Amino acid sequence: MTYCLAIQSKDGFVLASDSRTHAGIDQASVYGKMHRFDAGSDRILVLLAAGSLATTQALIHRIEQAIAHDEAGCSLTRVTTVFDAAHVIGQMSVEIQSQHWDALQRSGFSPEATFILAGQILGQDPEIFLIYPQGNCIKAPPDTPFLQIGESKYGKPILNRVVHPEISLEDAARCALVSLDSTMCSNLTVGPPIDLMLYRRDRFLPDRELRLDFQSPYYAQIQSAWALGLRSAFDGLPRFDWEL
Amino acid sequence: MTYCLAIQSKDGFVLASDSRTHAGIDQASVYGKMHRFDAGSDRILVLLAAGSLATTQALIHRIEQAIAHDEAGCSLTRVTTVFDAAHVIGQMSVEIQSQHWDALQRSGFSPEATFILAGQILGQDPEIFLIYPQGNCIKAPPDTPFLQIGESKYGKPILNRVVHPEISLEDAARCALVSLDSTMCSNLTVGPPIDLMLYRRDRFLPDRELRLDFQSPYYAQIQSAWALGLRSAFDGLPRFDWEL
Repeated sequence: MTYCLAIQSKDGFVLASDSRTHAGIDQASVYGKMHRFDAGSDRILVLLAAGSLATTQALIHRIEQAIAHDEAGCSLTRVTTVFDAAHVIGQMSVEIQSQHWDALQRSGFSPEATFILAGQILGQDPEIFLIYPQGNCIKAPPDTPFLQIGESKYGKPILNRVVHPEISLEDAARCALVSLDSTMCSNLTVGPPIDLMLYRRDRFLPDRELRLDFQSPYYAQIQSAWALGLRSAFDGLPRFDWEL
Repeated sequence: MTYCLAIQSKDGFVLASDSRTHAGIDQASVYGKMHRFDAGSDRILVLLAAGSLATTQALIHRIEQAIAHDEAGCSLTRVTTVFDAAHVIGQMSVEIQSQHWDALQRSGFSPEATFILAGQILGQDPEIFLIYPQGNCIKAPPDTPFLQIGESKYGKPILNRVVHPEISLEDAARCALVSLDSTMCSNLTVGPPIDLMLYRRDRFLPDRELRLDFQSPYYAQIQSAWALGLRSAFDGLPRFDWEL
């Protein structure tokens, strides 16, 4: 399993992902799931991946080849909107999945993968898209400006309560860390280290890039402060009438 | 979908369930999912149900018939442990499912249902069991003394952080309400009213039984206090080093 999320704000976007990959429960490894493409100084395009690792790696290879050869119609250096980039990536993903579909199905596996593409192209606003395994995509809605892929349920309540379009990048990053922490506490197939990227609009380079694990001082502080704050919020809940 | 949970503490147990039932998204109704059996003054046995409503209703009917006819081997008035009650209910559930299995499978439906049985029999400790659709069951572990059925993920992080074997029944009840509230915010197929029962050990009758919806003053207070407390916990998280 995997858990990746993207939060969009007026100031840019924040991306976060875990790093645990497993083939069966007895074969777990660490693979980063956040990949930034070098597609020109007028754009930033970052992909988060959940699902088949083979599909994901083949897709990233294919995207980088298309950039290197400046392929018409599919190089991310040439697309004019982030939506077009998401569409190109969706089509490549479907092609890659179809190559191994029959063999994998016979063995009971799936080549499917789901992606989040976050990006900005000069002159346009930053945007985040969710790309389905079938190649189509949706943009994050303005009212709930976040997207999640993989094991999304444990970490969703805090996003529902905290994220709004005016949130600062730093608050969005803290919220992403709490959301990932809640998920890692409940699902062993989501694990550290956490990759965290803050992107400030119109910079076209990441503002901050962090890799955090349980031993990182800041992550340990967040964990401890959140546990205490939650305890205090719980202790402050109103009593039942028979307790008064 | 459904969300029910049981929390065990040194003082007894707390049960909570939502009331939304749906057959397709355009046919939603309110059905209580908590059922207490009248099986004698030396025992309390309460069932929470998730899954097929037809299986659940047939099961409750079957259990009540067995009690009414004092059937040897399957009346809950005769079992000597809560484990035996869970075993009897598990076997009845499997029999009921098998009656309609083929017809339902042909139509693409499942007769499966999952249950939590909470109870105490005179001279023994209160216990909570999860009964699988296959009829087997497990007891809540001492280290994480709670059980969930149905849509369990959204509401699990708060249980992980707050529930422990020494928790008071009132704190357990508040935790159950917060857990249900987080779930109802994220999954439309889990809905009010909430049935809440507090059972104090050695009483053999519920200590408190409440039905709460969004208009109930106490539930509204809990919702508002939790939202404020969580916001305050979030605002109290440590800053990144570049913010200092």
